[in-house]
Amino acid sequence: MVTGKHDAAARGRVALIAGNGRIPVYVAGRLKQFGRNPFVIAVRGEADPELFGYEHDVIDTAEIGVLASILKRVRPAEVVMVGGIRARPDLRRLRPDWTTIKLAAYLLPRLRAGDDMILRGLIRTIENAGFPVRGVHELVPDLLAGPGHIAGPKPTRADREAIAVAVRGAQALGILDTGQASVAIGRRIVALEAAEGTDLMLKRVAELREIGRLGSGRNGVLVKLAKPGQELRADLPTIGEATVENAAKAGLRGIAVHAENALISDFEATCERARERGLFLIGIDPDSLPDGEGAQ
Amino acid sequence: MVTGKHDAAARGRVALIAGNGRIPVYVAGRLKQFGRNPFVIAVRGEADPELFGYEHDVIDTAEIGVLASILKRVRPAEVVMVGGIRARPDLRRLRPDWTTIKLAAYLLPRLRAGDDMILRGLIRTIENAGFPVRGVHELVPDLLAGPGHIAGPKPTRADREAIAVAVRGAQALGILDTGQASVAIGRRIVALEAAEGTDLMLKRVAELREIGRLGSGRNGVLVKLAKPGQELRADLPTIGEATVENAAKAGLRGIAVHAENALISDFEATCERARERGLFLIGIDPDSLPDGEGAQ
Repeated sequence: MVTGKHDAAARGRVALIAGNGRIPVYVAGRLKQFGRNPFVIAVRGEADPELFGYEHDVIDTAEIGVLASILKRVRPAEVVMVGGIRARPDLRRLRPDWTTIKLAAYLLPRLRAGDDMILRGLIRTIENAGFPVRGVHELVPDLLAGPGHIAGPKPTRADREAIAVAVRGAQALGILDTGQASVAIGRRIVALEAAEGTDLMLKRVAELREIGRLGSGRNGVLVKLAKPGQELRADLPTIGEATVENAAKAGLRGIAVHAENALISDFEATCERARERGLFLIGIDPDSLPDGEGAQ
Repeated sequence: MVTGKHDAAARGRVALIAGNGRIPVYVAGRLKQFGRNPFVIAVRGEADPELFGYEHDVIDTAEIGVLASILKRVRPAEVVMVGGIRARPDLRRLRPDWTTIKLAAYLLPRLRAGDDMILRGLIRTIENAGFPVRGVHELVPDLLAGPGHIAGPKPTRADREAIAVAVRGAQALGILDTGQASVAIGRRIVALEAAEGTDLMLKRVAELREIGRLGSGRNGVLVKLAKPGQELRADLPTIGEATVENAAKAGLRGIAVHAENALISDFEATCERARERGLFLIGIDPDSLPDGEGAQ
């Protein structure tokens, strides 16, 4: 029994614009539990097919006008966007309807900039059409990583030092609006995420380790942070079971995420996998790390 | 006939500590032409086997004491270090001789930091032993990239904008002592170099393009810069034929390097390859780019 179910239901239907990964599946399930009757707008080639079990429509990334007409038909009380979009919209396929033209005028000059700017434009367009856009953490609060130790072993002093170094890398990425994740081994940043995403970055670390370019032994940490001033209603940094598994394969000792600004998909399974693989999971405040160290 | 040959010969023998890539081979050839009778100290697993055609010794990255004893035997007038070291020294193999212990005391706390710090320590150790260390550009000046257009088509206005964006990425890497190269497409940084090196980073861009994550069409630039305050006697940013080829495969439009701070290996062949593949090569001053733009 979910508390506040009737209240939640009274808040009306949620339209879930679903990108890739497992988190949209989890969110849809929770929204259903909460009585929010999710309508899924699945991005073609990105959304998990499991979402097709819900009432849904499929759109292409370039079909902004179609998105608007779906929203006008479904009339959700709230809209939420979850999951990343890997493919860049193919501009040649943009349909020349009025909404698309209006949004394109905003988006086109920004389309080659970082993701955050594009998502802000999309949110503004949906809200201008009369549909409030919420952050997924507002609708499903248990997704948000809390501060402090979450699962697995406690980070050592050396781990905390590596966290502080990787935090500097991730913060630089945030300022550049380029990525969210960084891997440090000791005092050396060995990988920075850009268009490849966190999973491919971790696979790269695993490969570099295999060919002897990162020294021996198990060491290093993954840090994943929100961008400074990040639009919290889109593209929050996310980790899940797959992230833990990839970090383990990369020979890392743990993962630190931005407390209150990052999502943990499938919380119990992710913590269990961290314990099983012997990796720590912690939530950190990157702006108040002790001098030269990570969180306790 | 090389001008100043006899003067050069009078300046004595050069010991060439050779890491990976083709540039040590080129440098050894030029030094021989200049009458500097190079003695090659080849780093095992890194140096090109072509270098074994010179009088040489082979050392492991952990054999710092062996390096000192080779230098004392060869007694070069000058030492130069060329080519990258991919593998991190395996500390368990460090030989416990006196030079190693002295250097280890300096290096160990820094070994997990960026490459630049380690190289500075190595240079200081060699100089303390009485052998002056020169920058390769001091001994083979034609290796250094000049400012302005070097080869291939002229960069367009859009190319210059992408250069300015990638410059911001590469400068951030320099501050973090993490890498030298960045790729931007339009106003978006899509790849940042860390431990993987420039070639693997370019291969990643090619792969991301293949799977549709970078949009369509040929666009984007590679920028490669020295770090702010970089030790110019080691690890200068380098491009060559392979870089041009990999940039072409990644669908980029050109390459911008740090004028007077970057090396172009095998200059004629690299320029010819750029013309053949239709890529521009230019030398830029990252600190004086026109507002929001790259070099003319």
